[in-house]
Amino acid sequence: MKLLVESILILVATSLVTLAQADVHSEIAKRTSSFEAAFNRGDAAAVAAHYLPDATVLAPGATRIDGRAEIQNLWQSYVEAGVKDLQLTTVDLENHGETANEIGTYSLSAPDGNGSRVQSSGKYVIIWKTDDIGVWHLYWDIWNDMP
Amino acid sequence: MKLLVESILILVATSLVTLAQADVHSEIAKRTSSFEAAFNRGDAAAVAAHYLPDATVLAPGATRIDGRAEIQNLWQSYVEAGVKDLQLTTVDLENHGETANEIGTYSLSAPDGNGSRVQSSGKYVIIWKTDDIGVWHLYWDIWNDMP
Repeated sequence: MKLLVESILILVATSLVTLAQADVHSEIAKRTSSFEAAFNRGDAAAVAAHYLPDATVLAPGATRIDGRAEIQNLWQSYVEAGVKDLQLTTVDLENHGETANEIGTYSLSAPDGNGSRVQSSGKYVIIWKTDDIGVWHLYWDIWNDMP
Repeated sequence: MKLLVESILILVATSLVTLAQADVHSEIAKRTSSFEAAFNRGDAAAVAAHYLPDATVLAPGATRIDGRAEIQNLWQSYVEAGVKDLQLTTVDLENHGETANEIGTYSLSAPDGNGSRVQSSGKYVIIWKTDDIGVWHLYWDIWNDMP
């Protein structure tokens, strides 16, 4: 009887952990879609709102960027450069309590300078953290290009 | 009296957490120095041994690289290209149990193709994890260049 109760408890605990993990995945998937949508309508302020106030962005060919105001400026510069069709795809996602570490790939299109557009793609690591009310935000964000 | 005991317990617990954090910092500092030294003597196999067997490297202008054999090939290609004087500097390090997330900067020198050498620098995110016996290894590694 004791063994049965223990087995059930372990089963319930395992299921709760699995549920919590699934929840993190689906919450971060929602935040990722909403980030994409904000960028693709050219709303750099809405993109920046997906980052924590003390977030850090390490963009290729740029110095380190800290804080939402500077992060908004960075994304605004991409909007003004005509970058569009941002697509983010999560490849790996590992949850460690209040943080989650993601590897993903991106694709986008940008003007080629001759009136046409070019596709480019790359890969990224995002460290996600929850804010005070448990909403997932980007905390560290770094990416680089594919060959 | 109860309050005193509680205060002492909290003090001890806080000190233990601080000690554990300091330990992670100094352990990862040692592993970083050893990584640098391995690369700077041209030993790509020793560099690769700092990664977990299932580690991932996201290098600029390259596709995703998984596993120590491929990681060793990548570092061997840098050795053969004449990259030297690798210096790694930890800027932020956050420990979450069995993982630790780091932001750092690097500098290196490489042949400029005209018989001289050029300095270049960049920034990185490393996700560290401990192996079975508690030794810190690189698990995810991504970097890009400074302007």
